[in-house]
Amino acid sequence: MLLMNDRFVPKKEASVSYLDRGYVFGDGVYEVFRVYGGRMFEPEAHYRRLERSAAALKLRLPFPIAQLDAKLRELLLRESVRDGTVYVQITRGVAPRAHAFPPDAEPVLIAYCTEVARPLAAIRNGIKAVTAPDIRWLRCDIKTINLLPNVMAKQEALERGADDAIFHRDGVVTECTAANLMMVRDGVIYTHPANHLILHGVTRSVVLELARAIGIPAREQPFTLDELARADELFATGTTAEITPILEVDGRPVGDGRPGPVTRKLQDAFERRVGLE
Amino acid sequence: MLLMNDRFVPKKEASVSYLDRGYVFGDGVYEVFRVYGGRMFEPEAHYRRLERSAAALKLRLPFPIAQLDAKLRELLLRESVRDGTVYVQITRGVAPRAHAFPPDAEPVLIAYCTEVARPLAAIRNGIKAVTAPDIRWLRCDIKTINLLPNVMAKQEALERGADDAIFHRDGVVTECTAANLMMVRDGVIYTHPANHLILHGVTRSVVLELARAIGIPAREQPFTLDELARADELFATGTTAEITPILEVDGRPVGDGRPGPVTRKLQDAFERRVGLE
Repeated sequence: MLLMNDRFVPKKEASVSYLDRGYVFGDGVYEVFRVYGGRMFEPEAHYRRLERSAAALKLRLPFPIAQLDAKLRELLLRESVRDGTVYVQITRGVAPRAHAFPPDAEPVLIAYCTEVARPLAAIRNGIKAVTAPDIRWLRCDIKTINLLPNVMAKQEALERGADDAIFHRDGVVTECTAANLMMVRDGVIYTHPANHLILHGVTRSVVLELARAIGIPAREQPFTLDELARADELFATGTTAEITPILEVDGRPVGDGRPGPVTRKLQDAFERRVGLE
Repeated sequence: MLLMNDRFVPKKEASVSYLDRGYVFGDGVYEVFRVYGGRMFEPEAHYRRLERSAAALKLRLPFPIAQLDAKLRELLLRESVRDGTVYVQITRGVAPRAHAFPPDAEPVLIAYCTEVARPLAAIRNGIKAVTAPDIRWLRCDIKTINLLPNVMAKQEALERGADDAIFHRDGVVTECTAANLMMVRDGVIYTHPANHLILHGVTRSVVLELARAIGIPAREQPFTLDELARADELFATGTTAEITPILEVDGRPVGDGRPGPVTRKLQDAFERRVGLE
């Protein structure tokens, strides 16, 4: 089933208008929730970000978050998803094409859930990344469906034989295409501050909190490509990536080329936090 | 009727998948053609740009341009549109949500035409603009449906009592939200070079060509907000804007606050070129 606004409809019967502003302008916001054991992980943080993204675009939510939460829980039950994701997208609605906000359009919400296994191979064995210029707009903190630069960078990374791209803006490292990035150097975690240049990741916050709890110093400060090249450890954090070690950047190993001790400690703490062990 | 790939379908029966990458990522390109007297204006330039945009995104067109052209002409005849626009959009198609290009998806093309009067009041009497930071991505030369920053700037301009926004990137003027910008100073036209920071407007090219033909010097070089404030004349060029004088910027008059002689000469030349007089 698909949730369309407040109704559940069979996916096959679901359809969207060619005049939906999501289709014409990418005029919408979204969230992806992780589901572990049938329960959404950190739902409040995702709801807060959804509200913040919508507010930044002056986009009205079709109904209150409490009602959305009830609907998403019902969706998970109906679909019997145990380990997977819930995708929610809200657009400004259907109107004749014109850039200015339409006076009468009603927002369009769709949501569906999918059974998705945890990316255990990547979490255990790590991935390869390439660096790429960050050519995105200057409001990467808003989680919108204008995702073309992320799409192009991810695809280019794959074509270059890697798994993901690490963005840098004029030499300053920002994040990955669909995950935040953290670097470890001399036992200290560094990650780009949560400003307008990166997505304010829910998993990023969880990992920083876990680091504090287990006594690993963490600094939210920008670092350069040169510093990246001297990292002891590197890992991506994200709702679907969880904590994924990055073991190679542009063909060169990170540290000794194996997942490092800080990464492993955080992965263990994350699993405990999620209740997976 | 709506053209969906190579079929004509009634607009009411047309629908798009919620998994169309246009809806999920804004992963698509588009063109708007102007129609005067039942004929598309400068179709070849629009087709060339459509091909260039698609190539930049490695997006395959569903069929050759010659076939698209035949279909669009048929659409215009079926709909009996005399003065209006043809909108064409092509997305990477329908696939489960993942950033990387889907291996098997077929591109989705939609096209429709609309009767739209020329914006004669704006062309004659001019419009007001406000300046706004250009926070768009760094490939504004690709005509994609990732248009959220344009939407937001246009809306903000309206809320500030103006008609459009003039973008500047760190003080260097780029263009308007859906039109290019030209400035006249001491009888010389200045406009941002057609690089990655602006859309390479079809009307922009036509106007530069007309300027050359009637002996008005034109320079494709960037200018600053300070220079903008000292402009003798200012006008927007675009497929729907044609040549629209901008008579006020941030509440201050441009020149003497009336459409200037260079603007008027170009408007006359444009009308002759289009065959409107």
